[in-house]
Amino acid sequence: MTERVVLAYSGGLDTSVAIPFLADKMGAEVVAVAVDCGQGGEDMDAIRQRALDCGAVEAVVVDAREEFAKDFCFPAIRANALYMDRYPLVSALSRPLIVKHLAAAASEFKGTHVAHGCTGKGNDQVRFEAGLAALNPELKCVAPARDYAWTRDKAIAFAEEKGLPIEVSDKNPYSIDQNLWGRAVETGFLEDIWNAPIEDLYSYTSDPSVPREADELVLTFADGVPVAIDGRKLTPFQIIDELNKRAGAQGVGRLDMVEDRLVGIKSREVYEAPAAIALLAAHQELENVTVERDLARFKRSVDQRWGELVYDGLWFSPLKDALEAFIAEAQAHVNGEIRLNLHGGRAVVTGRRSGSSLYDYDLATYDTGDTFDQSLAKGFVELWGLPSKIAAVRDRKDA
Amino acid sequence: MTERVVLAYSGGLDTSVAIPFLADKMGAEVVAVAVDCGQGGEDMDAIRQRALDCGAVEAVVVDAREEFAKDFCFPAIRANALYMDRYPLVSALSRPLIVKHLAAAASEFKGTHVAHGCTGKGNDQVRFEAGLAALNPELKCVAPARDYAWTRDKAIAFAEEKGLPIEVSDKNPYSIDQNLWGRAVETGFLEDIWNAPIEDLYSYTSDPSVPREADELVLTFADGVPVAIDGRKLTPFQIIDELNKRAGAQGVGRLDMVEDRLVGIKSREVYEAPAAIALLAAHQELENVTVERDLARFKRSVDQRWGELVYDGLWFSPLKDALEAFIAEAQAHVNGEIRLNLHGGRAVVTGRRSGSSLYDYDLATYDTGDTFDQSLAKGFVELWGLPSKIAAVRDRKDA
Amino acid sequence: MTERVVLAYSGGLDTSVAIPFLADKMGAEVVAVAVDCGQGGEDMDAIRQRALDCGAVEAVVVDAREEFAKDFCFPAIRANALYMDRYPLVSALSRPLIVKHLAAAASEFKGTHVAHGCTGKGNDQVRFEAGLAALNPELKCVAPARDYAWTRDKAIAFAEEKGLPIEVSDKNPYSIDQNLWGRAVETGFLEDIWNAPIEDLYSYTSDPSVPREADELVLTFADGVPVAIDGRKLTPFQIIDELNKRAGAQGVGRLDMVEDRLVGIKSREVYEAPAAIALLAAHQELENVTVERDLARFKRSVDQRWGELVYDGLWFSPLKDALEAFIAEAQAHVNGEIRLNLHGGRAVVTGRRSGSSLYDYDLATYDTGDTFDQSLAKGFVELWGLPSKIAAVRDRKDA
Amino acid sequence: MTERVVLAYSGGLDTSVAIPFLADKMGAEVVAVAVDCGQGGEDMDAIRQRALDCGAVEAVVVDAREEFAKDFCFPAIRANALYMDRYPLVSALSRPLIVKHLAAAASEFKGTHVAHGCTGKGNDQVRFEAGLAALNPELKCVAPARDYAWTRDKAIAFAEEKGLPIEVSDKNPYSIDQNLWGRAVETGFLEDIWNAPIEDLYSYTSDPSVPREADELVLTFADGVPVAIDGRKLTPFQIIDELNKRAGAQGVGRLDMVEDRLVGIKSREVYEAPAAIALLAAHQELENVTVERDLARFKRSVDQRWGELVYDGLWFSPLKDALEAFIAEAQAHVNGEIRLNLHGGRAVVTGRRSGSSLYDYDLATYDTGDTFDQSLAKGFVELWGLPSKIAAVRDRKDA
Repeated sequence: MTERVVLAYSGGLDTSVAIPFLADKMGAEVVAVAVDCGQGGEDMDAIRQRALDCGAVEAVVVDAREEFAKDFCFPAIRANALYMDRYPLVSALSRPLIVKHLAAAASEFKGTHVAHGCTGKGNDQVRFEAGLAALNPELKCVAPARDYAWTRDKAIAFAEEKGLPIEVSDKNPYSIDQNLWGRAVETGFLEDIWNAPIEDLYSYTSDPSVPREADELVLTFADGVPVAIDGRKLTPFQIIDELNKRAGAQGVGRLDMVEDRLVGIKSREVYEAPAAIALLAAHQELENVTVERDLARFKRSVDQRWGELVYDGLWFSPLKDALEAFIAEAQAHVNGEIRLNLHGGRAVVTGRRSGSSLYDYDLATYDTGDTFDQSLAKGFVELWGLPSKIAAVRDRKDA
Repeated sequence: MTERVVLAYSGGLDTSVAIPFLADKMGAEVVAVAVDCGQGGEDMDAIRQRALDCGAVEAVVVDAREEFAKDFCFPAIRANALYMDRYPLVSALSRPLIVKHLAAAASEFKGTHVAHGCTGKGNDQVRFEAGLAALNPELKCVAPARDYAWTRDKAIAFAEEKGLPIEVSDKNPYSIDQNLWGRAVETGFLEDIWNAPIEDLYSYTSDPSVPREADELVLTFADGVPVAIDGRKLTPFQIIDELNKRAGAQGVGRLDMVEDRLVGIKSREVYEAPAAIALLAAHQELENVTVERDLARFKRSVDQRWGELVYDGLWFSPLKDALEAFIAEAQAHVNGEIRLNLHGGRAVVTGRRSGSSLYDYDLATYDTGDTFDQSLAKGFVELWGLPSKIAAVRDRKDA
Repeated sequence: MTERVVLAYSGGLDTSVAIPFLADKMGAEVVAVAVDCGQGGEDMDAIRQRALDCGAVEAVVVDAREEFAKDFCFPAIRANALYMDRYPLVSALSRPLIVKHLAAAASEFKGTHVAHGCTGKGNDQVRFEAGLAALNPELKCVAPARDYAWTRDKAIAFAEEKGLPIEVSDKNPYSIDQNLWGRAVETGFLEDIWNAPIEDLYSYTSDPSVPREADELVLTFADGVPVAIDGRKLTPFQIIDELNKRAGAQGVGRLDMVEDRLVGIKSREVYEAPAAIALLAAHQELENVTVERDLARFKRSVDQRWGELVYDGLWFSPLKDALEAFIAEAQAHVNGEIRLNLHGGRAVVTGRRSGSSLYDYDLATYDTGDTFDQSLAKGFVELWGLPSKIAAVRDRKDA
Repeated sequence: MTERVVLAYSGGLDTSVAIPFLADKMGAEVVAVAVDCGQGGEDMDAIRQRALDCGAVEAVVVDAREEFAKDFCFPAIRANALYMDRYPLVSALSRPLIVKHLAAAASEFKGTHVAHGCTGKGNDQVRFEAGLAALNPELKCVAPARDYAWTRDKAIAFAEEKGLPIEVSDKNPYSIDQNLWGRAVETGFLEDIWNAPIEDLYSYTSDPSVPREADELVLTFADGVPVAIDGRKLTPFQIIDELNKRAGAQGVGRLDMVEDRLVGIKSREVYEAPAAIALLAAHQELENVTVERDLARFKRSVDQRWGELVYDGLWFSPLKDALEAFIAEAQAHVNGEIRLNLHGGRAVVTGRRSGSSLYDYDLATYDTGDTFDQSLAKGFVELWGLPSKIAAVRDRKDA
């Protein structure tokens, strides 16, 4: 029986030409799968048709925007997911979603292989292949760019040779990956890490330094995830989408950093993630109000590990599941409202209120009504410092 | 022999009146110690004279600004110290410095007790008393506000009764603690955590939303600490002082948060820390460039613990010393330059260069000259995902 | 209305005499609550009658042995709970159980206070009072030994004065706390930490150095807890009870250590915990077989924190609940059988088998049938070491 | 110029025949390097001669026993190094030592390649290659067993074909790696993890179940490492060597476990490490006496990471260096004596004394002389439990 390759398909030149190339090279049939994670751009039906025109035996398009928001972006909010304390895992979150749909298509269409467009020096190859290994260990992976040195230039030459109906636009100087959660840009001049980004790189965000009116809104959270803006109940996708627009219009969410890739090298990355940055700021402050101190302290190490695992391509892993169980328990009381001021590139919390608050006005106030019994403090302070005190006495004796 | 109380002295009404009050209450002599941590305000000699006028048998004033910058603020930079990922430990850093000088004065003037002005529900009592217990376990601590319910009203009444030369100004509506590293403000209306801060609270920072020209500078770091601005070699104090002015003028460093106090309650705090926030942003990015991945990942947990310990009053503790040893080793190559854009409340890194960089253009680039051997990736990816894959097979069998 | 004190009652001299003492001192009625955690000793009905004879208005006895085994000891197995890598939390586990029943009795009998026999320098006062604060924050706590300096001598004098029906036995030279999970012994000569324990201290374990026949058994685990011995399904209490006997007969589970108390001092402790040590050894090895590597590595930090929290009296705390959620997820596949050899003070795993095993003979074997593709290793090894290699090149350049 | 391969040489059949094989296959000269890490066996000069007889252009033998003890085993003691809480890193410690000498020989004899005998599914290939990459990134690695499928059978055939002076003994049924720190054994029947080890596997240890007299000794530690036995000052090698004999004679240090390999599979391992297990038990207890609580708690995570890193082949890595700095600081007061009873397979601490002890008899005792102020406890306990109490009130309200 002819083998079938399920191809992660974007609709662009490289993956379009990859359809006949893979069919040729592997003597296989190609099933193209395109997943809408909110990356915008072309109509999904047009993408589907192009895959078929290029020779795909089947072409599947999936509107996964709500699924992406609810099952991938929202868990990242609960985990305060910022890799290296900065990067909100834009591409890292979409890959396991795409993997899920690739595995489903392989199952439906009896695919034996999965092909993706990643190179051999990035993180995404790991996210695809480790994810697929977990979801369906039988599937074999092919990465034409890595395994066959497939490039844009080769794709153009191949398209001409085969007379494929592919329009060759000018090469975009930027290498871009974008979805509902944000946008990543790489380009040659940024590889000199002393060079500053230029305004032209950005698409989700306006220039934060241009004077404009501030935007203020109130976010409602339930169980650690946002459920309403200014009292309007919205779906997960709608909340992120609206915040991308409103926070983006204020220049919120631009990031520029040197980052540790899983394959062992450092790379320069520029990101825009307006909704992500705004939502994470709000969520963290709501945790400050509603999560008990020891739990909050330990959760930082859980959150850090969650971010590393997802960055490292291990979304589908036993540790990820156990960290999620911890986080779910920790989010049970993360309910309430956060007032957020969006302006000049900053998303600033200016108010918080919650029926689940652990902030106790009567204990905190220095005004009348103070219920904190200060006489308890003396004993606490003495025993708190006792181990250090005993050690200090010993150290002096030893010295 | 008469006992001697070494008093942490600010020059203000409360601690001035505390001099005769403690003498009276404890039948002791009072030695006043005032430490300049860059809090600005009155001349230290005037403060010294006031202490003597109020009856202190000795009055010591210490210009500790360079010491504070070098030995307390700079280690905080190396530790990326942000308690709860936000608060740069403004008061928490100055207390151990003051404690050091109180213990020194106790030793010089044969003090048997140390008195400080902290209440029983704050963190600073712990920082004073745990610090003193470690530096000189013989010293006993007195906290008039906590132990004798000493208040501003009582101080005014006592001053009138004794005819003390104290000028009673209007009560400042804000409770403020400030030093070179930043400024903390508490006040009644902020105890309602839904209320937003108002412009009137701030003193170190201008309103970030007012349009103005950006300020750009290049910071040079050596061994993880800043040593020059725009190529000008400066002392630690000078660097922080200049950045407070320049970053403050751009509205950088305002913070508003609910915070977990060591005594077990949550409190609302508003801070300004322009230099701290700018320096920490620069330092973190220089670490991204110069610190190896596994070290950087583990250092996050070291940094977090460092911040918790210092916040919790355990500056002088064996664990703090061991964390410092780790950090010192990790900072050996944190050398180089960071270009920082200060504008609109944001301190943004726009460039980095370093002779100790681990960013390798040849490995990172996608242009010609790429030296990364992509053929290595396939084996890496497969073994990286192998444990999850084996577990996934088992899980499916178990289910 | 007369206040009511719910007393944690052991049936012994001190707490018996405490009944009329507290009634007297506090002008209150006393409700005695005795909880059987498997400590053995007197019949619970006799204990109940003694409380009433001493003047208690109510006396409650609870057979909590199965509850203790299932809800307190078994979670400790799943958490591999060994404080300081050694102590299986014998007393620390029983206190929250007792607290639960004290709080229930307070609710049933309208108690306003709870009294317990702990001193002010041990851990148990924290476990009682922090536990009660969490279960019923209205209850006030009284600790006669700590708050009224109540001692055995005072109790004897008080009993004689009041003519109480208390038999004064010779003072046991050992201070003992024991329950189903183990036994703790303190005594004067052990306070010199150079002194070795003597055989006379032990009661749950035979001398391991006496030659005898080994005992071998197979433990079946499901979801991380033992469910059968040698194929016989048993209740949680029965499993621990049988293992105490069989492992105890082989001298398994003696511990002698210097330990960090929560109140800030170090103390010398001698423990016996035959079932605990045997079960933990078996459980750890079954985890080695069934838990994925990254999960196992992170779980060590979760386990350590779990043990610290429970030792530190925070059984009823939000962090404990979140750690439990992590652990529950991690135990889902900890199923299978462990063969255990008990002999000469050692509990040694000699075999393991599991339908949920992650050990894959075909991947592990060096014999024919090996399915591990060694060609994958080269790429893995190179990328694994790449960050260290880049850093080494840099270090050499910097030096 | 002819390339030169530096071969990690054991003197055995496989690596002896590898000399002409590599020369042949790679057209290179072979430099053989044999390192004595205390593995016993043949005389090093005989090994050297055999290498030359087999065609090596140079043959280096190094007596690295003291270096191994001091620079590799002793740091493992300070780090309480037990991978998965069990395995004292026997092979993992010797590999970086061998790597050091291979790199030195490559430098001395202008080697361009390094060859080692590891397979592609074990940990040792990583330890060799990651270590070499860090010490000399120019060197290329060859692993005949992995890269050329070089086996014992092929070696025998090759030796016959070439008429090499190699004596072919019967194949040892066990695959063994041993050195001063311990011994690892693998063999076919142990690959069924339900099978128990048999007595025949062991060489460093006597059967612990045979009745014999106990052996007792006192170990003196300075800065966390042993310096004397029973008051006799000894070198690092001498201490470990003597303890291997004395603890081994009592059957101490046998281990049987399923272990997580770095390459992603689980394997069954049997170890003997009498000195290691005895020294680690003694060191841990001395830490209990001399290391402050918070430091001890954090050090557990440092120790765990140290063990993982070394197991994972990253001895020469920036994180390892920083962990070492932490550990060095933490060991500064780990001085004193531990009395150890060796008997029946157990190494039991029965006494500890130290001039640097943090155990304070006066604070710990319940006898007269007690200096602990119990009145401090009440305030401590209340504030300690306050966050959980506030959370419990909130939880009840939320429910």
